[in-house]
Amino acid sequence: MTNSFKYGLIGFTGRLGREVVSTFAESKNELVFKFDENTTEQKDTPQILIDCSLPVVFERTIEFVNQFNAPLVIATTGLSEQQLNILKNISEKVSVVQSYNFSVGVQILLKLTETAKEKLGDWDIEIIESHHRFKKDKPSGTAKMLRDLFPDKKVPISSLRLGNVVGEHTIYFGGMGEVLSLSHIAISRRTFAEGILKSAEFALSKDKGFYSFSDVIFNK
Amino acid sequence: MTNSFKYGLIGFTGRLGREVVSTFAESKNELVFKFDENTTEQKDTPQILIDCSLPVVFERTIEFVNQFNAPLVIATTGLSEQQLNILKNISEKVSVVQSYNFSVGVQILLKLTETAKEKLGDWDIEIIESHHRFKKDKPSGTAKMLRDLFPDKKVPISSLRLGNVVGEHTIYFGGMGEVLSLSHIAISRRTFAEGILKSAEFALSKDKGFYSFSDVIFNK
Amino acid sequence: MTNSFKYGLIGFTGRLGREVVSTFAESKNELVFKFDENTTEQKDTPQILIDCSLPVVFERTIEFVNQFNAPLVIATTGLSEQQLNILKNISEKVSVVQSYNFSVGVQILLKLTETAKEKLGDWDIEIIESHHRFKKDKPSGTAKMLRDLFPDKKVPISSLRLGNVVGEHTIYFGGMGEVLSLSHIAISRRTFAEGILKSAEFALSKDKGFYSFSDVIFNK
Amino acid sequence: MTNSFKYGLIGFTGRLGREVVSTFAESKNELVFKFDENTTEQKDTPQILIDCSLPVVFERTIEFVNQFNAPLVIATTGLSEQQLNILKNISEKVSVVQSYNFSVGVQILLKLTETAKEKLGDWDIEIIESHHRFKKDKPSGTAKMLRDLFPDKKVPISSLRLGNVVGEHTIYFGGMGEVLSLSHIAISRRTFAEGILKSAEFALSKDKGFYSFSDVIFNK
Repeated sequence: MTNSFKYGLIGFTGRLGREVVSTFAESKNELVFKFDENTTEQKDTPQILIDCSLPVVFERTIEFVNQFNAPLVIATTGLSEQQLNILKNISEKVSVVQSYNFSVGVQILLKLTETAKEKLGDWDIEIIESHHRFKKDKPSGTAKMLRDLFPDKKVPISSLRLGNVVGEHTIYFGGMGEVLSLSHIAISRRTFAEGILKSAEFALSKDKGFYSFSDVIFNK
Repeated sequence: MTNSFKYGLIGFTGRLGREVVSTFAESKNELVFKFDENTTEQKDTPQILIDCSLPVVFERTIEFVNQFNAPLVIATTGLSEQQLNILKNISEKVSVVQSYNFSVGVQILLKLTETAKEKLGDWDIEIIESHHRFKKDKPSGTAKMLRDLFPDKKVPISSLRLGNVVGEHTIYFGGMGEVLSLSHIAISRRTFAEGILKSAEFALSKDKGFYSFSDVIFNK
Repeated sequence: MTNSFKYGLIGFTGRLGREVVSTFAESKNELVFKFDENTTEQKDTPQILIDCSLPVVFERTIEFVNQFNAPLVIATTGLSEQQLNILKNISEKVSVVQSYNFSVGVQILLKLTETAKEKLGDWDIEIIESHHRFKKDKPSGTAKMLRDLFPDKKVPISSLRLGNVVGEHTIYFGGMGEVLSLSHIAISRRTFAEGILKSAEFALSKDKGFYSFSDVIFNK
Repeated sequence: MTNSFKYGLIGFTGRLGREVVSTFAESKNELVFKFDENTTEQKDTPQILIDCSLPVVFERTIEFVNQFNAPLVIATTGLSEQQLNILKNISEKVSVVQSYNFSVGVQILLKLTETAKEKLGDWDIEIIESHHRFKKDKPSGTAKMLRDLFPDKKVPISSLRLGNVVGEHTIYFGGMGEVLSLSHIAISRRTFAEGILKSAEFALSKDKGFYSFSDVIFNK
């Protein structure tokens, strides 16, 4: 297995940040630097930085990457084109893993959908996504990623909002006489924290370069 | 079990009509009168009439009910208000079972939904229906019946059109921390033919009266 | 809504206990007494006691009920016949709510299954339950409760063990041409904490008596 | 599209045989030779032979292949090792497509499962199969094919028998925090008839060779 490492966490008080802390602790990785709106604490020099914060913090994140000369795993959503370009520039110096979805299963779902499409692309295709009632955007980003695999087709997306469902996505391929469906259910935010852990281990194994979470999973 | 009987079938060449013929034959009931666009055949006097045809044939159906003085099970969809009233009038003389859906499971689904609503009416509610790609109307009549059980609430219906799916309906109740769902899948039209058979046996046991398929199932 | 209240919690450090603390806090109820293996803390006199501990603690729980003369909601699993009898005795003095499953949805699932059984009892029936890989007993208690609703029938239970699934139960009724299924998914332990909260409010409204969680939900 | 062709059908009165007749007719292919227990009819020379019969008829099938020097698609289940060898020998002269499952979706399901396995092979894996109550063998052949993709692992199979369900297979991959599942539902035997049609078109395009249905789908 991978050796344990010392890490810094930007956005340590958010939902995902707290999940990262407990997941990383189970693998004996040590939180030596943490940053949030009201707090900066440093016990040691981090070997890698994790960012689970918001786009407004982005500038500070880049400062910390430069300060520690450390690789970065960034889960912040809603980054601007300009911010993504800054990440690409800095990835010429350190390795960077950037994604809007750190669930392994969703990456597999996307890959399987591409494979299924080769043979079943002319079947009827439908996507359903279910999320908690507090999610305001419809459809989900992941549902859109699935739909975008079919550029030549109008694939309908049905969005359900139910209680506090973490997140579910199903894609159906309906033929004459049979239906094939691929389904992903996120049970807890822990799955995203584990994806971030895998990404950290991946980033630590690279000298530099800009990577997606798909690269991490499929070892590119 | 019920004794076998002699029946007449209006609309014997349609999809549902053919299913009725084979289902009734298994219970040793005898087809003694059949009527369709191009054919009228009579071998004996029917004890009961089944109508699986279209609203345009309705007038003839009523003539046959009067001619044979026989009870009627009518599965024709899209009847007008006036036609329904004619049925109610004639039901003062013979028993009539009228429904747009002769699936037992769907009646149970409706009943269970009413029960669930009593306790979970304030949870998030969503309905999904899936049908074959040739179904033009959205949402399905059954999905609307489910939705109409919640007059005080805007219950969303998602409609999927997939290959040649016979018909599926699911209603979800989403609370904080749990989801309850009730689901009905029609596998073949045989299920509707069996509902019509049950209705015929029910109608034969009554002197007169206007009944829904729900009455048949719940023995009112 | 219900007024907030002061409560005592036995087993406050366990998984369910911690969930109770956060759920009760959201309804402005105050934790004034807590007890666990190593800790006894009292800030005020509790109006009601909640027990989320283990059978070994049972004796102390009864002492606290007597000491505070407070009603009790007890979620401890694996109580002995003798311990249940002690609860029934004490319920002649204070109200007691006892259950092995405080999920509202599961109570509804049981009730709907009973209703469905009346009409579909002769269909093929199958139960599936899915739980996390750490659950050692098969089948789950809830699956057994479902099965026990069919004393005249051998209903098969299939048990799946998958990652950290919180808990899912589905009962299928398969007829010729259709399948009806009822499904419950627990998303988080919060659902159990909410059931305990409902039970506490119920117990506070009663002078005395021994109640199940089903009584709480169906207002007996 | 493919040109229409003249075909011979061995086992034309069985369930699958009748489905083949109607499916092939829709593509304007002509049934010019048919053989069954009691009947042999020939109107013209078949360009290809389809066998939907039983192992006892196998010898006659081989005679017909030799007589017409025609390729063969054989869906007969339960062939012996020796019979399979005879097919391989004759495939040096004509093309032969042999499979126990002519559903496109099931082939895709098998392929996707192999892909998912590469990344999720260490997750918890469970298989569920549902079939009609008349199916006597447990588990289904397709469920076994799925299980056999994991030779290093003990993958449990749960078998449900429900009414007249045509055939459903689901494979679950359960990780910590997420579940991925792949599901195939056969709606009607037509799906198998369509697989046989695809295989016939494939066989007609080859001079000789022994092929599986997977070869047909994935164009080997």
